[in-house]
Amino acid sequence: MAEPTTPRFEQAVRDSFAAQQLMATIGARLARVAAGEIDIRVLFRPELTQQHGFLHAGVVTAALDSACGYAALSLMPEGAGVLTVEFKTNLLAPARGEELIARGRVVRAGRTITVCQAEGSMLADGAETLVATMLGTIMTVRDRPDIVG
Amino acid sequence: MAEPTTPRFEQAVRDSFAAQQLMATIGARLARVAAGEIDIRVLFRPELTQQHGFLHAGVVTAALDSACGYAALSLMPEGAGVLTVEFKTNLLAPARGEELIARGRVVRAGRTITVCQAEGSMLADGAETLVATMLGTIMTVRDRPDIVG
Amino acid sequence: MAEPTTPRFEQAVRDSFAAQQLMATIGARLARVAAGEIDIRVLFRPELTQQHGFLHAGVVTAALDSACGYAALSLMPEGAGVLTVEFKTNLLAPARGEELIARGRVVRAGRTITVCQAEGSMLADGAETLVATMLGTIMTVRDRPDIVG
Amino acid sequence: MAEPTTPRFEQAVRDSFAAQQLMATIGARLARVAAGEIDIRVLFRPELTQQHGFLHAGVVTAALDSACGYAALSLMPEGAGVLTVEFKTNLLAPARGEELIARGRVVRAGRTITVCQAEGSMLADGAETLVATMLGTIMTVRDRPDIVG
Repeated sequence: MAEPTTPRFEQAVRDSFAAQQLMATIGARLARVAAGEIDIRVLFRPELTQQHGFLHAGVVTAALDSACGYAALSLMPEGAGVLTVEFKTNLLAPARGEELIARGRVVRAGRTITVCQAEGSMLADGAETLVATMLGTIMTVRDRPDIVG
Repeated sequence: MAEPTTPRFEQAVRDSFAAQQLMATIGARLARVAAGEIDIRVLFRPELTQQHGFLHAGVVTAALDSACGYAALSLMPEGAGVLTVEFKTNLLAPARGEELIARGRVVRAGRTITVCQAEGSMLADGAETLVATMLGTIMTVRDRPDIVG
Repeated sequence: MAEPTTPRFEQAVRDSFAAQQLMATIGARLARVAAGEIDIRVLFRPELTQQHGFLHAGVVTAALDSACGYAALSLMPEGAGVLTVEFKTNLLAPARGEELIARGRVVRAGRTITVCQAEGSMLADGAETLVATMLGTIMTVRDRPDIVG
Repeated sequence: MAEPTTPRFEQAVRDSFAAQQLMATIGARLARVAAGEIDIRVLFRPELTQQHGFLHAGVVTAALDSACGYAALSLMPEGAGVLTVEFKTNLLAPARGEELIARGRVVRAGRTITVCQAEGSMLADGAETLVATMLGTIMTVRDRPDIVG
């Protein structure tokens, strides 16, 4: 676990996550909040699938991106906002199973730019299979009341 | 427009798109199908937003990825399946406005690997703003009855 | 062509390019400098090849990255410095032929972040073949005397 | 360490590396060959720098790409060839110091597609600093005598 800048980091992450309406739409929940490390879980549902019946890459990416963004936010000073600059996702295996676990962590936190890595695994019959990996870039936004959290 | 391998490419794209349940969930529609060029549109809805009220990067990515995948599929032989290997998305501006237009096109179609590019723009008051750009890699899958379309 | 911030942008690009010792090592030259658009050319030489005799992806990437960086720099204010945050390169075809032409252009220039796109083509017998495409993120650095150009 | 397909994997990697003329040009050496894990080292030299005096991103990328490619090759069957489909590199800190260590490893090896991850660190005064991270996609080429190794 990295060193948080503010003891209130967990609340900042939870407040922002609750404000992401897409997370409710896809049934995502915040499963773990630590400094620099976030887990998000999404239960498999047919409404989230692509044409072969697996979770759509867009859903996997939404969870990985949020895990990266909140891992970054957890190390930022109070009142900062987080914007995703870019990410790259490799899809490693079909996302089939009961639940997606997206784990994001900070690789390097800078003043303006934070680089994060995330892995997505599918849980099926108690076993995990790695299905996706993300490498992304997050920007810290300061002094913009419209971009907080 | 590129040269399609089969005259039935449009039907293959439409059938596969209709099988993507996530597209219905986010309200995406296939707005244009040409050989090597696909447009997908998504109306803005609060259920699709991130914490600052813009369309979530996961939704933008889902539309761009599908546009890339179907641009690739439109040039593949009949009965082929399409799998996304990876993509990279740069988010250029907040995705605010009335509708997202995701335009995918094939940069280079190979036997196994197709490289696609896609752009996402938001339509607001009749004007378009570029909000995202994707560069992605798609694989052609042959002779696998579970991976068609 | 985009609108430059300073009329001295061409000199800033040429001075910085001349300071990149790697460019001399691989025989790269600045073939075109316009606001937001840069061409760099590299003559094929056996010392720059990978194991199958084509130009190494690292050489292609070095040229594309510099083309992106200078396209970004050409739109920045005087005295700014340019740092590459990240890039993604798709290799589309073997880089064989007489000369690599790397063309970089700005997709979107922001205050802190500039997104660029670049294409690499090989010239052989008077014809060009697209061999690589890059999508990259550049940061503007201000007020750091060690990071100018 | 992963399970190699052939006991001759180390020789295949060493032969192919020796055939990469760019590696000699930049002074790169193969420092470690294990199944699915490759280290390449490059001594800092002024001829390899960008405009601020750090190792150029193209050199860092050349080493990371070769480390990824050979990590992939080390798990392929005898006689196979390796082609980089694409990679993404995040530059985390200025590449200053005495030597670059590029460590590549296989994340997932498939029949056609292998996904690799690599990290680049600079060694300075006995300490290592992480300066770059790569996520890349490699293709296995079979039955093509011009693409072996």
